[in-house]
Amino acid sequence: MNNFDFYSPTYFVFGKDRENEAGKYVKMFGGSKVLIHYGGGSVVRSGLLDRVKASLNAENIAFVELGGVKPNPRSGLVYEGIDLCKREKVDFVLAVGGGSSIDSAKAIAAGVVYDGDFWDFYRGKRIEEALPVGTILTIAAAGSEGSPDSVITKEEGMFKRGASGDAIRPRFSILNPALTQTLPAFQSAAGITDIMAHLYERYLTNSEEVEVTDRMIEALLLTMKHEGPRVIADPNNYEARANIMWAGTMAHNNSCGVGRSQDWLSHTIEHELSALYDCAHGAGLAVTMPAVFKYELSHNVMRFAQVAVRVWGCQMDFAHPEVTALEGIEAFRNFLISIGMPKNFEELGAKEEDIPALVNVLCRGDGRDGNIYGFITLNEEDCTKIYKMMV
Amino acid sequence: MNNFDFYSPTYFVFGKDRENEAGKYVKMFGGSKVLIHYGGGSVVRSGLLDRVKASLNAENIAFVELGGVKPNPRSGLVYEGIDLCKREKVDFVLAVGGGSSIDSAKAIAAGVVYDGDFWDFYRGKRIEEALPVGTILTIAAAGSEGSPDSVITKEEGMFKRGASGDAIRPRFSILNPALTQTLPAFQSAAGITDIMAHLYERYLTNSEEVEVTDRMIEALLLTMKHEGPRVIADPNNYEARANIMWAGTMAHNNSCGVGRSQDWLSHTIEHELSALYDCAHGAGLAVTMPAVFKYELSHNVMRFAQVAVRVWGCQMDFAHPEVTALEGIEAFRNFLISIGMPKNFEELGAKEEDIPALVNVLCRGDGRDGNIYGFITLNEEDCTKIYKMMV
Repeated sequence: MNNFDFYSPTYFVFGKDRENEAGKYVKMFGGSKVLIHYGGGSVVRSGLLDRVKASLNAENIAFVELGGVKPNPRSGLVYEGIDLCKREKVDFVLAVGGGSSIDSAKAIAAGVVYDGDFWDFYRGKRIEEALPVGTILTIAAAGSEGSPDSVITKEEGMFKRGASGDAIRPRFSILNPALTQTLPAFQSAAGITDIMAHLYERYLTNSEEVEVTDRMIEALLLTMKHEGPRVIADPNNYEARANIMWAGTMAHNNSCGVGRSQDWLSHTIEHELSALYDCAHGAGLAVTMPAVFKYELSHNVMRFAQVAVRVWGCQMDFAHPEVTALEGIEAFRNFLISIGMPKNFEELGAKEEDIPALVNVLCRGDGRDGNIYGFITLNEEDCTKIYKMMV
Repeated sequence: MNNFDFYSPTYFVFGKDRENEAGKYVKMFGGSKVLIHYGGGSVVRSGLLDRVKASLNAENIAFVELGGVKPNPRSGLVYEGIDLCKREKVDFVLAVGGGSSIDSAKAIAAGVVYDGDFWDFYRGKRIEEALPVGTILTIAAAGSEGSPDSVITKEEGMFKRGASGDAIRPRFSILNPALTQTLPAFQSAAGITDIMAHLYERYLTNSEEVEVTDRMIEALLLTMKHEGPRVIADPNNYEARANIMWAGTMAHNNSCGVGRSQDWLSHTIEHELSALYDCAHGAGLAVTMPAVFKYELSHNVMRFAQVAVRVWGCQMDFAHPEVTALEGIEAFRNFLISIGMPKNFEELGAKEEDIPALVNVLCRGDGRDGNIYGFITLNEEDCTKIYKMMV
């Protein structure tokens, strides 16, 4: 196991009706003038936004609003949010929504207190300072409610890049599983896929002797395997929603990823798909992961065999571990298809003829050196092959 | 799943040589005058105390020391520590040692800023304020390095009682698995037992639909089942020590215990044993748990069958689940015996003739109402039967 630091100071407020306590927690964490940042549509229609405002009013907390966050959130709205916060002297950013709203809120929070262009952070500069951020989560997926990370798409060039720093970890996150009951099945499934991807990206490690985190990841994968189909079958199943929601947070606050190298190649390769086609990130991952995993398989057959046996219930073929390893990848792929995820480029809305352009942005875009790094190192030829496997 | 709050803001600093960073973290969390609180013996002999002092000196942090913490830490030393801190205007308490040193440090930290008798907190008053506490852990066991809890024995009456409050959660905890390599096998085994007890106490729940936390607990139990014997066989196995150390922290920071009722009857019943006989808490738990679990079995056969199958590898007897359930308890008991834990009163140093006195303190001591509460409710007759099962 590698040396590590682990720091997850977010205050999690979990359960039914707890969004009504938003004002109390904004106050606890020092907010007096809030930017409420959200997407739109369902947050407004469901009355959630009104309940949040009522809760802020009850604590005499002033607020301004900025809606309009899109999935795969864009830099344009971030600049707008930064200007608004500066103009209105906002001291707390409250995201209401999913990973997109939260990531956009984090970018705004970091940008407000930074003299340069906020995009510097998405080109590798560590975020050391930011306005405090709180979240009210409406979809279990990104894990951004408990992470120090944010992913934004820059509209000039459509680069999708991540930034990181403890300063943008939410001070509090309100997780009410009931808020996710109104999600369309496809979005629920995309969220489930994203959570499982966060687990696989940590599972695929070159570190040895990491039993405790292996077991924790497997535990969360087993939970998703059991609870995922229950939510697809019955969107109103609060209990299944609750199990998925806590699993989603635990999958990404890194308690199960400490002390080990991680992969993240599937995310890196997928980001170009959702940047170009604006598809759901989870749907992109569903198509990406099986291809990436097959390409990585020979690097560590036993690791893929282990997850096949422990999570997917495959019988170990002791004479041919690679058979079991592959069986586990197929089982995962079939699971994703069974909950309604796309299985190839066509179903995702991606085009084979775009592969050269995808590979170019992936490997050369925004200062990259021709390779991408993770469980293994991939060059442009490798990435081309992987995208072709998805066709 | 029940509504819950989860807040674990401790900064964990994990790995080889990291105790040399103690000064840096005391400074980060605002300490300028430190009480170093420890047991003695090995902490001094190993040079650890000197390294910690050097690290504080390097940051120009002043300190005073108070050694002498005994296993099952006593109220007398806590009063002494409170006086010392007040006299010396200490603003940070740094525990160097295991759960006993940490629990004693927490009691001191709470007592210093409280006008009344610190024991009020151990009679049920919530700790709302305390000096900041940091820890350098030397045994994986109690989980106190990441918990808001402290257990102290009051010398008048030998009551062993717990107190709680976010204010006494360590601000940082330094976890270097190598520091645990010098532990005698018996102490390592007692630590392993304590960690597994923290997991079982959370597993035995009356809450339904708690798949995610069930799976996480099972993951940590599986880790202990695998890594425990490796440490007993080779005390210098750093990797096994590392896996156990992180499992011990995760077992008790409550990330796997949220949203569910918990048991804690084994701890409650054991506390009277270690209070009266001054035996190792883990050793007391090894004798207590199998008896308590057998007594609880009929309350929820399927829960005990589930852990038997998922953790202990028992084949489910679908016609007679109680057979599987009991098999799991026996497998756990045999595991504990195999790592060197006592199996009955005699091996623990307890006496059958003390049972009436034990039951009296347990059920009536310090304001209790004749029952103790957990997975089931036990009266004096039940507790008498359980202690007799341990003989």
